[in-house]
Amino acid sequence: MDLAQRIAARGSEFLLFALTPPRTTVTRERAQEIADVTRKRLGAVALDGLVLYDIDDESDRNPQERPFPFLPTIDPATFLAEHLADWSTPVVVYRAVGKYEEDDLRGWLEAQDAGQALTVFVGASSRHKRSATSLVRAQELWAQARPDLPLGGVAIPERHTRRGEEHLRLVAKQEAGCSFFVTQVVYDVNAAKNMVSDYRYECAARDIEPVPIVFTFSVCGSLRTLEFLDWLGVDVPRWIQNDLRHADDTLQASYEHSLGAARELIAYCRRLGVPFGLNVESVSIRLAEIEASVELARELERELHR
Amino acid sequence: MDLAQRIAARGSEFLLFALTPPRTTVTRERAQEIADVTRKRLGAVALDGLVLYDIDDESDRNPQERPFPFLPTIDPATFLAEHLADWSTPVVVYRAVGKYEEDDLRGWLEAQDAGQALTVFVGASSRHKRSATSLVRAQELWAQARPDLPLGGVAIPERHTRRGEEHLRLVAKQEAGCSFFVTQVVYDVNAAKNMVSDYRYECAARDIEPVPIVFTFSVCGSLRTLEFLDWLGVDVPRWIQNDLRHADDTLQASYEHSLGAARELIAYCRRLGVPFGLNVESVSIRLAEIEASVELARELERELHR
Repeated sequence: MDLAQRIAARGSEFLLFALTPPRTTVTRERAQEIADVTRKRLGAVALDGLVLYDIDDESDRNPQERPFPFLPTIDPATFLAEHLADWSTPVVVYRAVGKYEEDDLRGWLEAQDAGQALTVFVGASSRHKRSATSLVRAQELWAQARPDLPLGGVAIPERHTRRGEEHLRLVAKQEAGCSFFVTQVVYDVNAAKNMVSDYRYECAARDIEPVPIVFTFSVCGSLRTLEFLDWLGVDVPRWIQNDLRHADDTLQASYEHSLGAARELIAYCRRLGVPFGLNVESVSIRLAEIEASVELARELERELHR
Repeated sequence: MDLAQRIAARGSEFLLFALTPPRTTVTRERAQEIADVTRKRLGAVALDGLVLYDIDDESDRNPQERPFPFLPTIDPATFLAEHLADWSTPVVVYRAVGKYEEDDLRGWLEAQDAGQALTVFVGASSRHKRSATSLVRAQELWAQARPDLPLGGVAIPERHTRRGEEHLRLVAKQEAGCSFFVTQVVYDVNAAKNMVSDYRYECAARDIEPVPIVFTFSVCGSLRTLEFLDWLGVDVPRWIQNDLRHADDTLQASYEHSLGAARELIAYCRRLGVPFGLNVESVSIRLAEIEASVELARELERELHR
């Protein structure tokens, strides 16, 4: 089964790996080198799909200084077309929809190959931001232009902790056409379970089937990366922060936490009957962290029923 | 080793079982029957100690209606002396210190047998309540009268979630003489880990040894008991609440959650090098819940290194 089939089957587990495209300041040659080294690195992992993030300047979202400076990155659709054209699995291309005019978004949707492309729409990072296309409007464009292209949405357990209604957002997105959800990086397993559980019972109450939730994991090799996770809005429980701060090997400690979190969520979703996938990313561009992320994906591969 | 020695050794694990004495309205004969049936029921469990709670009317603490009405219970010291005189293990007698005049508290402390009795002081449930003796004053009385009697304090992970300083309270209580801590019922393992972790690193920063933290577990056999846990201030994570509400057998589901929580905290404390004990109580007086609590204690017995 390919990724779209696994998502539609709503019971088959699957594994993704997520990349942020290189910065726009790199040369074409350098971008190709990055694509090639990534391809080589991920060759040993039996992935169901690749995720390409679409990075927007979210400095309006958080008044605190960004631990790593924001640098514009190559549009994921461009990076895919120009540097990863013969990639071997389906690719989930993120669209930060507020960045695109309606015609551009429609044009992009129309050009996609349904067997090879999936997309995730992400809304504006704050209400105050100028947005070329709203999330709701983007979902309408998708429904008109390419309802056959699997559409995903973001799921944020941390928002559920604050407001307790993320499960209702998920159901609303599902009604608008989303057939899967992808979380941001998970360190707070309890928050993720709360969201999944409320979503599961909300679906039951409405007599609809839950769709797969893809949990994202990332290692964290330094206190700087930990700060960055915090800036990104990832809740890292105090005890895990303490573990990472006092670990002899922060990278190894975070690797074990991520693996433990993934195993716990796998067991939980199986017990609850909620379909799921796993996604691994490296939030840092340090080589050691990237390599540990690939190793994490390899280890998670063995945990899944596919 | 007896319980006081295990506490002092700061590395030996131990198992307690907690009881609330019968209501003051029961006859002497009925109180003795309750003591006898309890003795028989707990005979099969290799306990290191028995805990007797001292219940205070805490209706001032929480403006919401109490799911079970408050009914005064026999003073635990009286229940012990009159009905459990030949109990086979040491007994941890709680003192809700605000209920007692200084002379009464001093008199009670002086009469205790150090080999057989331990105590836990609990302060007033709110600042607005009239209190005959404050927690700080009670600690002073203990230091003057019976510093050889092991003194414990309460540890509340939920307070750590709200205010983030429970670890500092624990260290202050330790400096005032506490040689162990007992939590309220734990359902939020993440909150318990956060508290233990912050306490562990605060001790390291001050170059003091952590003392044992005793984690309390209770089954929950009905939604009424779940409400009562909530009223008592126990945070039950949403996903566990959902599990219990939708379980075919709420009692069994809560039993498995408690067992899982205990195992997780055991593994965590061992890894972190924080000494600990386990305590099982039944917050309900329903027979099925009491029996499941005893069974939980029996199962936890096998998890401990003693």
